[in-house]
Amino acid sequence: MKAIVKTLPAFGAEVCDVPEPQITASNQVKIRTQATSICGTDYHIYSWDRWAAGRVKTPRIMGHEFAGEIVEVGSDVASLKVGDYVSGESHWTCGRCPQCLRNERHVCANTRILGVDVDGCFAPYVVVPEASTWKNDRSVPPHLACIQDPLGNAVHTALSGEIIGRTVAVLGCGPIGIFAVAIAKTAGASAIFATDTKDFRLNLATQLGADAALNVLNTDIEAYIKERTEGIGVDVVLEMSGAPSAIQQAMRICRYGGRVSLLGIPSQPVQLDMAEDMIFKGLTIHCIVGRRLYETWDTMRSLLASGRLDIEPAITHRLPFEEFAYGMELMRDGLCGKVVFDME
Amino acid sequence: MKAIVKTLPAFGAEVCDVPEPQITASNQVKIRTQATSICGTDYHIYSWDRWAAGRVKTPRIMGHEFAGEIVEVGSDVASLKVGDYVSGESHWTCGRCPQCLRNERHVCANTRILGVDVDGCFAPYVVVPEASTWKNDRSVPPHLACIQDPLGNAVHTALSGEIIGRTVAVLGCGPIGIFAVAIAKTAGASAIFATDTKDFRLNLATQLGADAALNVLNTDIEAYIKERTEGIGVDVVLEMSGAPSAIQQAMRICRYGGRVSLLGIPSQPVQLDMAEDMIFKGLTIHCIVGRRLYETWDTMRSLLASGRLDIEPAITHRLPFEEFAYGMELMRDGLCGKVVFDME
Amino acid sequence: MKAIVKTLPAFGAEVCDVPEPQITASNQVKIRTQATSICGTDYHIYSWDRWAAGRVKTPRIMGHEFAGEIVEVGSDVASLKVGDYVSGESHWTCGRCPQCLRNERHVCANTRILGVDVDGCFAPYVVVPEASTWKNDRSVPPHLACIQDPLGNAVHTALSGEIIGRTVAVLGCGPIGIFAVAIAKTAGASAIFATDTKDFRLNLATQLGADAALNVLNTDIEAYIKERTEGIGVDVVLEMSGAPSAIQQAMRICRYGGRVSLLGIPSQPVQLDMAEDMIFKGLTIHCIVGRRLYETWDTMRSLLASGRLDIEPAITHRLPFEEFAYGMELMRDGLCGKVVFDME
Amino acid sequence: MKAIVKTLPAFGAEVCDVPEPQITASNQVKIRTQATSICGTDYHIYSWDRWAAGRVKTPRIMGHEFAGEIVEVGSDVASLKVGDYVSGESHWTCGRCPQCLRNERHVCANTRILGVDVDGCFAPYVVVPEASTWKNDRSVPPHLACIQDPLGNAVHTALSGEIIGRTVAVLGCGPIGIFAVAIAKTAGASAIFATDTKDFRLNLATQLGADAALNVLNTDIEAYIKERTEGIGVDVVLEMSGAPSAIQQAMRICRYGGRVSLLGIPSQPVQLDMAEDMIFKGLTIHCIVGRRLYETWDTMRSLLASGRLDIEPAITHRLPFEEFAYGMELMRDGLCGKVVFDME
Repeated sequence: MKAIVKTLPAFGAEVCDVPEPQITASNQVKIRTQATSICGTDYHIYSWDRWAAGRVKTPRIMGHEFAGEIVEVGSDVASLKVGDYVSGESHWTCGRCPQCLRNERHVCANTRILGVDVDGCFAPYVVVPEASTWKNDRSVPPHLACIQDPLGNAVHTALSGEIIGRTVAVLGCGPIGIFAVAIAKTAGASAIFATDTKDFRLNLATQLGADAALNVLNTDIEAYIKERTEGIGVDVVLEMSGAPSAIQQAMRICRYGGRVSLLGIPSQPVQLDMAEDMIFKGLTIHCIVGRRLYETWDTMRSLLASGRLDIEPAITHRLPFEEFAYGMELMRDGLCGKVVFDME
Repeated sequence: MKAIVKTLPAFGAEVCDVPEPQITASNQVKIRTQATSICGTDYHIYSWDRWAAGRVKTPRIMGHEFAGEIVEVGSDVASLKVGDYVSGESHWTCGRCPQCLRNERHVCANTRILGVDVDGCFAPYVVVPEASTWKNDRSVPPHLACIQDPLGNAVHTALSGEIIGRTVAVLGCGPIGIFAVAIAKTAGASAIFATDTKDFRLNLATQLGADAALNVLNTDIEAYIKERTEGIGVDVVLEMSGAPSAIQQAMRICRYGGRVSLLGIPSQPVQLDMAEDMIFKGLTIHCIVGRRLYETWDTMRSLLASGRLDIEPAITHRLPFEEFAYGMELMRDGLCGKVVFDME
Repeated sequence: MKAIVKTLPAFGAEVCDVPEPQITASNQVKIRTQATSICGTDYHIYSWDRWAAGRVKTPRIMGHEFAGEIVEVGSDVASLKVGDYVSGESHWTCGRCPQCLRNERHVCANTRILGVDVDGCFAPYVVVPEASTWKNDRSVPPHLACIQDPLGNAVHTALSGEIIGRTVAVLGCGPIGIFAVAIAKTAGASAIFATDTKDFRLNLATQLGADAALNVLNTDIEAYIKERTEGIGVDVVLEMSGAPSAIQQAMRICRYGGRVSLLGIPSQPVQLDMAEDMIFKGLTIHCIVGRRLYETWDTMRSLLASGRLDIEPAITHRLPFEEFAYGMELMRDGLCGKVVFDME
Repeated sequence: MKAIVKTLPAFGAEVCDVPEPQITASNQVKIRTQATSICGTDYHIYSWDRWAAGRVKTPRIMGHEFAGEIVEVGSDVASLKVGDYVSGESHWTCGRCPQCLRNERHVCANTRILGVDVDGCFAPYVVVPEASTWKNDRSVPPHLACIQDPLGNAVHTALSGEIIGRTVAVLGCGPIGIFAVAIAKTAGASAIFATDTKDFRLNLATQLGADAALNVLNTDIEAYIKERTEGIGVDVVLEMSGAPSAIQQAMRICRYGGRVSLLGIPSQPVQLDMAEDMIFKGLTIHCIVGRRLYETWDTMRSLLASGRLDIEPAITHRLPFEEFAYGMELMRDGLCGKVVFDME
């Protein structure tokens, strides 16, 4: 079969002919992919940054976001059968470390990641463990079902505390940020302020439900939010950018007693005025990673299947997967929401 | 001034000339009412049922739901001034009993109720303590601002646990029930099933956002819900009717591990199959009374002011307050949502 | 090997020679038992009550509470090795039903129970799935490690809400009740009132930390608790008896805004004055079943290993397992705390 | 009367003759102090650091921690009477700002502090609002009842999340730190590791229940904790020192998915490796200020009155209040736990 493979420890990737993956353990399933999508992590691997160089071993089939149909099941698989329509959690967890036993599987000590530590899904077939699959509702089409990994990040972040009737700031309007906007809207947030440096992304944020989309390059965010919240600040901040300046700002724009949920990953240390901006204000800070297995997926499934959550506008590009290089360029330039590969 | 007064310990009430109420303590405010509305409690007093006979002393100005403008403030009032636009929490709490000190003021040991234990608001003027007022957003008109007491019951009940992405059953479609439907919708519930015995009310439930409005007289509710939830039952039940049969049903239609929030008041003991329907299922039961002071009001304010919550269709009648007897008839017959008196 | 076997669908059981169980799936482990203990469920099977007759198929090796050493592991077992010291969760869960996927495995739709639905542990060897084992701390001796299933019920019940600095009533002083007393003590409850009909058990409750142990046959429990709590009632009620009268009492002795956690299983419907005793009081009711997998076990492990929780006095009898009939008599008469079989 | 007065904007304070304070509003009470105690804040004012110079206006009677007896009540005071035995919350809150209305009074927008913004309690008499008093249990002697303000900080911090059966690190063993040790012990923490730079304080931590008291000057704290927690880190960190290095360490020693509660106030910005130490680990950070009014006090009352919490060893010095200068020296040198003035 043809797959997008990271062949060498350097910039780039190529479409290669590789053998179809086979079920090698009794708890695995084989899936024919119908749609896959590009994550920022894929771009890190493609561009071979420091993180990728330290973690990924080549050759490696890339990709971890997918939706597809089961074509074969291992002998111990009980909950799935051929023909089932599934997506997959990219973080494969061990189920038995202290974190997994406490149902904090999103911080499993032995996490392996599809398309990073094992061969991924940018290919017509992928093999994954039963425990890492999620059964989709048939009403959700593959080009939406495939993006549940990043959508799950947004659900996990936005819903880590109360949100109905709250004012919410979303800092950073990449795909996960705009998903967070949509979720806050569905959840009944009373006002949603989105920020970014790129107008293309701010426009997407508006389409997904932001009440105000603010370019940090030409807006005094703190003054704006103060004015719109009677001087109090927002109830909830969802930090999706990872920019140290945005993390500092998150603490300042949050009201006394408010919540800041941090998902964006800063690439360097961050200096914080903890006394004034955090402790005296009695903030609660949630550091978010991954998705809760599988509470987050359960919530996503019902929001997508019921039509309560509309993320269609976030899918800005649908490409044949051979055009992955163009998709990577879009990612690099921030000129996209979610880029989906139609696999068939 | 003219007021609706419960003059005698018997069925009925009358419009009487009474003196304008005066501020008698330094922490009180005097309010000119702009809109008031009828609560089921008012009908209990009007029809003089057993509860009313045991609690209310005549003569008593009726009414506890209102919105209006402050015309005078006591000398120790700091947070309000003449001209402010307010509504009032009908449960006046002491602030110093063990429950109040734990911020569980909705179960204050010394609660007094406006229009029940002290003279009420079915009149052009009413005097209340500063601590029992709530400042409204100017964008919310009086005929909506006056119904926050029952809307708050619905908010308190619906939001006593998670609701986004959950399937919800609302049993009983009186005003508080249909408000609960609207709140569940705003909060992102994935499906809302409403039940009642009256088609008039079920029609209102549909207008306020129910996905299915089911008449218990001709529908097998349990079979219907089982079929619509893949045999699992609903995640959340909001019991608003107080009917013993509905309370029993609430436990049966709730899924394993689900939540049942009980607001409706049964007038007789209820027999429950606790082993099968509750304990083995690991249910969580929230018994709800009143509103949380003032978290519930805070949430309501932002939902109403932001326009996220639209309850306009629940206001089925707007009458001059002299026509209160007609309003009481509508209440008796269940041929109304909320009946509002325009006071000016 | 010799095992206690329910051979016939009638009262009793016998020690039989049976083949040693063998590992038949790659995810199983074989355990040499060091200690086992009798649960109320075992007595139900022994005495062959209606529930047992409807559920258990004979012949069946009885028993589900154990501690022991692993002597063999299946080929896919990764987290355990020969020599590990383990106990087991008696409720085998599927891991993939809606409840399991939400980490509510204690209400798994496909639960099978050791010693009830599959052959149990009243034998020198038992085979169980890796996912149903729990690794014990070496410092906890087998006669204590074996009772974690019922101790877990008590932990789950007592810690389903806040307990430090709270007044607590424990209704019913069977083994799980007295465990709950000990846990409430360790957790910093400010006063613990235990009730039962048997002085033997009340004496055990006192040994495990009850501040007052009250015989319901000669004490007016409600008056007593009212007097000891300044007329307010207790903050927390842990209902462990399943007696309808105790469940009714639980609601009455709980303070406004308090918590009632129900574990005891009533054998008939229960009639409740829900308006006065529950709804107007704003109670929260937790219906408890099983143990949270594995948060409850995790808490137990640290409490036992650290020595913070001392349950030694609850183990009133240690017998060779051939004397099981005597153990069953003790259970029947309520003249015991926990009856442990030393298996070697 | 004689009082300790900050007379001049410079180092020091003096005992002066001042008029007895009088009730000037109908909601006030006058209290005869029986015991008072020194807080770090008092030392800041005494030594006149930058914070004090920017906030305190001289002359000012110092002190905010007290226990005493009511000798007079204002005309609107309903919950207290002459002879009642009370302490006081030092943070006087407005009750009507957005935070107060949400029952987040500990972050009231209009907080005034006794002994800082208004005349304090280092005197035979003090006048405070009814709403800022707390009725003590008679069984708690004045020299313990007076320290509830800092004890409340510790209760608020320690109990801001689950603690029973958890491993806990307390960083900083000043009075609030050692109180936190005692609370963690009472609450059933499975292991308590306390750190400080002063052996005198570490010795107090041990007396109050620490399982290990570690001097950061000669112990590799991270290595020690790693070794004692099977390489996992502690479940809960209570940061009481305010030292930037300790705050950084708090994040590193906390396990994946754990909780860090921050009470200590850093005097300069803190640099954090947020990606590695916080976000990837999925930490929850609670920034704590003050006490929850009055949930924290309610918990304290029952812990003290029941004898479950023993803080007697934390009171290292009891002085006549004229010896306040010696008390200040002890504070400066860290050679004390809590310094109490016996006022009569």
